[in-house]
Amino acid sequence: MSDVAPTLGDLPTPCLVLDRSKMERNLARMRARADALGVRLRPHCKTAKSAEVARRALGGDAGPITVSTLREAQYFAENGFSDITLAVGISPSRLNQAAGLLARGVDLAVTTDNAVIATEIVATAKALGVQFAVMIEVDVGEHRGGIEARAAELMEIAGILRDGGQEVRGILAHAGHTYGCRGADAVAEVAEAERAGAVLAAERLRQAGHACPVVSVGSTPGALFARNLDGVTEMRPGVYMFMDLFQSGVGCCGLEDIAVTVMASVTNLRPNEGSAHIDAGALALSKDRSTQAQPRDCGFGLLTDAFGRPLPGLTVEAVHQEHGRIAGAGVDPAILPIGSRVHVLPNHVCMTAAMYDRYAVVDGLSDGPKQPVVAFWDRVNGW
Amino acid sequence: MSDVAPTLGDLPTPCLVLDRSKMERNLARMRARADALGVRLRPHCKTAKSAEVARRALGGDAGPITVSTLREAQYFAENGFSDITLAVGISPSRLNQAAGLLARGVDLAVTTDNAVIATEIVATAKALGVQFAVMIEVDVGEHRGGIEARAAELMEIAGILRDGGQEVRGILAHAGHTYGCRGADAVAEVAEAERAGAVLAAERLRQAGHACPVVSVGSTPGALFARNLDGVTEMRPGVYMFMDLFQSGVGCCGLEDIAVTVMASVTNLRPNEGSAHIDAGALALSKDRSTQAQPRDCGFGLLTDAFGRPLPGLTVEAVHQEHGRIAGAGVDPAILPIGSRVHVLPNHVCMTAAMYDRYAVVDGLSDGPKQPVVAFWDRVNGW
Repeated sequence: MSDVAPTLGDLPTPCLVLDRSKMERNLARMRARADALGVRLRPHCKTAKSAEVARRALGGDAGPITVSTLREAQYFAENGFSDITLAVGISPSRLNQAAGLLARGVDLAVTTDNAVIATEIVATAKALGVQFAVMIEVDVGEHRGGIEARAAELMEIAGILRDGGQEVRGILAHAGHTYGCRGADAVAEVAEAERAGAVLAAERLRQAGHACPVVSVGSTPGALFARNLDGVTEMRPGVYMFMDLFQSGVGCCGLEDIAVTVMASVTNLRPNEGSAHIDAGALALSKDRSTQAQPRDCGFGLLTDAFGRPLPGLTVEAVHQEHGRIAGAGVDPAILPIGSRVHVLPNHVCMTAAMYDRYAVVDGLSDGPKQPVVAFWDRVNGW
Repeated sequence: MSDVAPTLGDLPTPCLVLDRSKMERNLARMRARADALGVRLRPHCKTAKSAEVARRALGGDAGPITVSTLREAQYFAENGFSDITLAVGISPSRLNQAAGLLARGVDLAVTTDNAVIATEIVATAKALGVQFAVMIEVDVGEHRGGIEARAAELMEIAGILRDGGQEVRGILAHAGHTYGCRGADAVAEVAEAERAGAVLAAERLRQAGHACPVVSVGSTPGALFARNLDGVTEMRPGVYMFMDLFQSGVGCCGLEDIAVTVMASVTNLRPNEGSAHIDAGALALSKDRSTQAQPRDCGFGLLTDAFGRPLPGLTVEAVHQEHGRIAGAGVDPAILPIGSRVHVLPNHVCMTAAMYDRYAVVDGLSDGPKQPVVAFWDRVNGW
């Protein structure tokens, strides 16, 4: 690239493209939702993994955020974020690293759902001279992490932490099974169960004398469709920033709200066989097939042309490591000439974006290959 | 970690572990195969993406290699490899980058299967003052990249390149459909079709006056089970270096030959529900489900304990972004206590390893958490 500001056409493919204007619309919508529900927004940064995006999600400030790994926590701390919740149950192998962040002044809350790790937290805190803030995870129906809100173990875990001099920061729930819902009403039912379970657990802790200031829930569908969040103090949606085909299938957005695409080039074309290949395959798109269980199966992604205009009936139907196979009636040299650019809408943007270390940021795609790239924003990956 | 050499138990999880002794056995086996078949080994580095591994694959030297991206080509060139074939059909968007490597003295061969890109190759060569060496890809039955060995377009592509002053280096075939085979005989049939197609295409080129010095085939199953490679000059297997559950399902290896695992920690345990969770999920393992189509469906991976001993009947049955759900009769606190380490054997190691930027290298796992880490080897990812 020359010194002149690059355009999308200057960038080699595959390339991760972020449409800033779509993203800003998604961000504003969720801020308005949090205001309407009367809860704090603690956006989950597991999707974007980008300080530039996180600041915009918070309206410009380095405010409260959620992360899924300690590498994210470290990266965001280095970028000025100091109020961070690790919402994935912490592994004992990571307690030293978490303590290091506490020692550097980061207000890092960690999460667990069992007495064994609560005991390890206390031991590490004593050994290293720090105090952990701990979220206790409750299971509100997904059966992933968490204990039942009514479980005796809740009091046991809180007791171990308090007796060991640690802070019981609050209750954390994640109704990931909203992802299996179709439409607002179905999501609202699950979100209500999440709310009720989290609030019940928090009340039990308070009755036992724990302050339990935080009651945290969150998923993008739940945040968008919950009827109320009474008793909840914060929500942690993440994928809403970019949206994807799966969220569209749940009913959280339209295809026009999907802000992240993979730009790819057509590398061969066999109109007689009804197939073409692009240079974005299993690594560039991920092997996520989550839309398979939805009414509209999007294969490994839907396609638009270089200008962001949908190419109806064309999907990435198969992937190899670096090849994506496109099939459909629209495989036509007039539509997809060899060498032309396309954009792939991702099934699950958390998985797709994780293969890239930066976003090429644009304001729309309407100029196609001449679309100016206004910035490159970095991402943090790995652990 | 302190200055003392670390052990596996010192490393936080998830973590990519490479058993060097298993790898060396796999590497020696393939070198012996190439010798027996009378062809040059040009190992495909798309799996390992590591200079340390590639040198060992070649018995110590920076010899001929295959890559799947130009970022790999760049990385290997910086690490002393100068004879590199990009075996994925090149995108026009990457021709400038490829020309840059040629200008730096790297003997980089690129691949295409169509006249449009051949024409672009000629144009780029003229504009930038370089000469490309080009492999023409033939389709030997997988219907991914490549033209039929008998297709008229073969002569057209070669003619465009020759008339444009470029080198027609040879024919490249990849019988990726060996992956759908079960057992040596089925693979041998496909490998013979690959050999015959590649040799036929090369003969056609030679009859038209092209030297066509290279006839290149390759997949791990084909390399292991081809009955002969008469007329072929080189083979390009890659995944054999590490092996994985999918290759085991094809019959290429036993479980005991799988050299790369993901070390993870148990973060919760629900014996009553028959489930546990580890801190290796969709990102740490990938969403590859290729074993689903095989007689033995391994879910998202099979488990061993910290000492590499199989845990029969335990698989990773579901993944979320950072959670792996383990299910099976063996979910028992005596076998999988919270905080204990396990290793996950990957379905498809190319996908799994791509999420990590280094390998923790060991010689076996028999010392469990006390196993010394003898080195960290870097990997190159992305594009």
